[in-house]
Amino acid sequence: MDETPAEEKPAEGSKPSRRKLLGWGGAGLALGAVAAGGTATALRSGDAAPADADAAAGAAVPFHGAHQAGIATAVQDRLHFAAFDVTTDDREALISLLKEWTKAAAAMTAGDAVGDGAVGGLAEAPPDDTGEALGLPPSRLTLTFGVGPTLFGKDGKDRFGIKDRRPDALIDLPQFPGDNLDKARSGGDLCVQACADDPQVAVHAIRNLARIGFGKVAIRWSQLGFGKTSSTTPGAQTPRNMFGFKDGTENVAGDDPKSLGKHVWVPAAEAKGDAAWMAGGSYLVARRIRMHIETWDRTSLKEQEDVFGRDKAEGAPAGRNHERDAAHLPSMLPTAHVRLAHPDSNGGIRILRRGYSFTDGTDGLGRLDAGLFFLAYQRDVRHGFVPLQQKLARHDALNEYIQHVGSAVFAVPPGVRDAADWWGRALFTPSA
Amino acid sequence: MDETPAEEKPAEGSKPSRRKLLGWGGAGLALGAVAAGGTATALRSGDAAPADADAAAGAAVPFHGAHQAGIATAVQDRLHFAAFDVTTDDREALISLLKEWTKAAAAMTAGDAVGDGAVGGLAEAPPDDTGEALGLPPSRLTLTFGVGPTLFGKDGKDRFGIKDRRPDALIDLPQFPGDNLDKARSGGDLCVQACADDPQVAVHAIRNLARIGFGKVAIRWSQLGFGKTSSTTPGAQTPRNMFGFKDGTENVAGDDPKSLGKHVWVPAAEAKGDAAWMAGGSYLVARRIRMHIETWDRTSLKEQEDVFGRDKAEGAPAGRNHERDAAHLPSMLPTAHVRLAHPDSNGGIRILRRGYSFTDGTDGLGRLDAGLFFLAYQRDVRHGFVPLQQKLARHDALNEYIQHVGSAVFAVPPGVRDAADWWGRALFTPSA
Repeated sequence: MDETPAEEKPAEGSKPSRRKLLGWGGAGLALGAVAAGGTATALRSGDAAPADADAAAGAAVPFHGAHQAGIATAVQDRLHFAAFDVTTDDREALISLLKEWTKAAAAMTAGDAVGDGAVGGLAEAPPDDTGEALGLPPSRLTLTFGVGPTLFGKDGKDRFGIKDRRPDALIDLPQFPGDNLDKARSGGDLCVQACADDPQVAVHAIRNLARIGFGKVAIRWSQLGFGKTSSTTPGAQTPRNMFGFKDGTENVAGDDPKSLGKHVWVPAAEAKGDAAWMAGGSYLVARRIRMHIETWDRTSLKEQEDVFGRDKAEGAPAGRNHERDAAHLPSMLPTAHVRLAHPDSNGGIRILRRGYSFTDGTDGLGRLDAGLFFLAYQRDVRHGFVPLQQKLARHDALNEYIQHVGSAVFAVPPGVRDAADWWGRALFTPSA
Repeated sequence: MDETPAEEKPAEGSKPSRRKLLGWGGAGLALGAVAAGGTATALRSGDAAPADADAAAGAAVPFHGAHQAGIATAVQDRLHFAAFDVTTDDREALISLLKEWTKAAAAMTAGDAVGDGAVGGLAEAPPDDTGEALGLPPSRLTLTFGVGPTLFGKDGKDRFGIKDRRPDALIDLPQFPGDNLDKARSGGDLCVQACADDPQVAVHAIRNLARIGFGKVAIRWSQLGFGKTSSTTPGAQTPRNMFGFKDGTENVAGDDPKSLGKHVWVPAAEAKGDAAWMAGGSYLVARRIRMHIETWDRTSLKEQEDVFGRDKAEGAPAGRNHERDAAHLPSMLPTAHVRLAHPDSNGGIRILRRGYSFTDGTDGLGRLDAGLFFLAYQRDVRHGFVPLQQKLARHDALNEYIQHVGSAVFAVPPGVRDAADWWGRALFTPSA
């Protein structure tokens, strides 16, 4: 199923209207914003991102396709990520929720209010939609759904009768050296990654999914990301992280089907039998990485650059001139972050990163609680994040300045094919 | 001093370059962003905001002027607010820090790196600048400085010899009915409000001020705001808060010197003797208002509209058609928020609001820790926020859905006049 092009049907995202704007007096401002993005072709899920993705900031990203949007999609500016505990033991209730979620996700990513189609009007906003995104353009919202290991059973209990469908690749992540994980910020039965160019749109989406799921799911933890730290668009500059550096230059490009097929999408050959539902999907690792920025900020430029193996100003690998010049690994310290993480040091391993900077106020010691919410997609964590992190956790000079404080892994199913399909369908009803 | 126009000198903000971009290979993306905003006239501090403030998203807001920027300035998209404890008892050390802060603030709001002017180059980024905003445009960054009541002495100790200069208007806020204040999220000797259209720029600014202040100040609490909830630009739509409503339509307009003079800036006649340093300043009330959005979301549209006294879709006052139609208060319930807060119900009291929506993850009960970070500027809190909130706290129907959990008040001095002036100069050295 991998590398299958997204279905060539008129994407609902291609309409530039949001939330029946024309019926609204508040349309003036929003229409202006849509007009800016509306001329750009809507992006197709799992498909090539336009070189100037920023020009399409107000547009809609199609929800349906071979792969879920929000992975290969050109990285949006803002993130709201939520991990959910399923609080019901009722399989049918969960399935019914997933169907309802899917319908709501399709509406919200198209820029419509939840329940729009069903009840035919915004006057129905509450209880169908909470309303705080009314009048805002789609803002390239993507909603990406995943299932955690615990959904397949925990405490010896297989609540939903899907124990046998847990893919081998959906391992429990090992404990890495230096991990200091907060259980309250780790794990989760389900996850939804909301990315958008407007944080109000991303927050609105998570909040409405939580609202719809009331009594069946509860948010276990959530994370707001204020700034993207990676780019899946080859022409674009890599944004800077909270250490002031560009990192992840060798990221998988969202418009490179060959790399996506090799490193990101689960091929049918690796999703056999009971795990066939994951063909065309991907595996997501989420790590909350606290950065000790106060310590970092008192480190000299020279040392900072040595730690990364990069020039800070330009982002060029050590001894090179430009960010995208080929790295010369022997020019770097053996403990340099770039050297250790580089595909050439790891048998060609590459992952697709779309992490975000966060700052969540202040810890009890007057320090900003800030860092990187690391999100990486890969075909198999056992040959992706796990060996990479085993190495980094042991040797990376950066470890003096960071600490992993939250962790989760999710199986991210393939895309929702059409209006009849729903998140998790192939997992729960493989014959359908 | 109020209503004095901002000084007519070439604003350093008028240059479209940030952080000596041309010396940087990373300039391509940033220059594009600057080009988008660079054609707009730079805003002048305390002066009229252009009608289409959004067009100037990349531009610089001048730092110097009669009033501090970030009050009358057209509200930017994002906020990072920090309250600081002064950890030194050394008056000269504090003064020296305030001078250093002022210099850094002037540089950052102009789009330069900290230390740029002094050391002449970005290669000096650390330790002079942490670097994560390198290559980003000024993004209309404003840094607004205030001093809290505790700076004038606490626990009977006047650390800085300024006890007599505490203005009468800088009261300790009373306890309001329903308050459930977290001390760790309240108060502060100093505050800095960073607003920008790019959150990375706002976070960078606070972080660098904290870094510069290491050993003299420590962040007591901080708050990230992801979405503006108010507009100081008369033509613009009022953004929606987390309840999905527009609120604060009667906000003081940033381009209306008469209203600003009447409601926001402290007139010289009210800043006499030892408190003369506050002429042209303003008083800021910050309240962290948790919204119980899960409860709200299960409330019918009719009830929500009754609670606010507004139509949700359009934001029109009850019985009217458009947001800015004059409110007809008798059409609303006596407990309706708009009715209670309206100037006509409060002897004409108006405040300048520039609050932001926040979401800080999840509480221990699976609910989003979300709400409104309320920021209001006024000429005198005793005739502004205090009487308004006394009434709202007792009668507002909205109280069923909100709780005030953090509180602070600050005296915000007038603007920094020129490169020789500094934050707090008139407070610490009134004769200079």
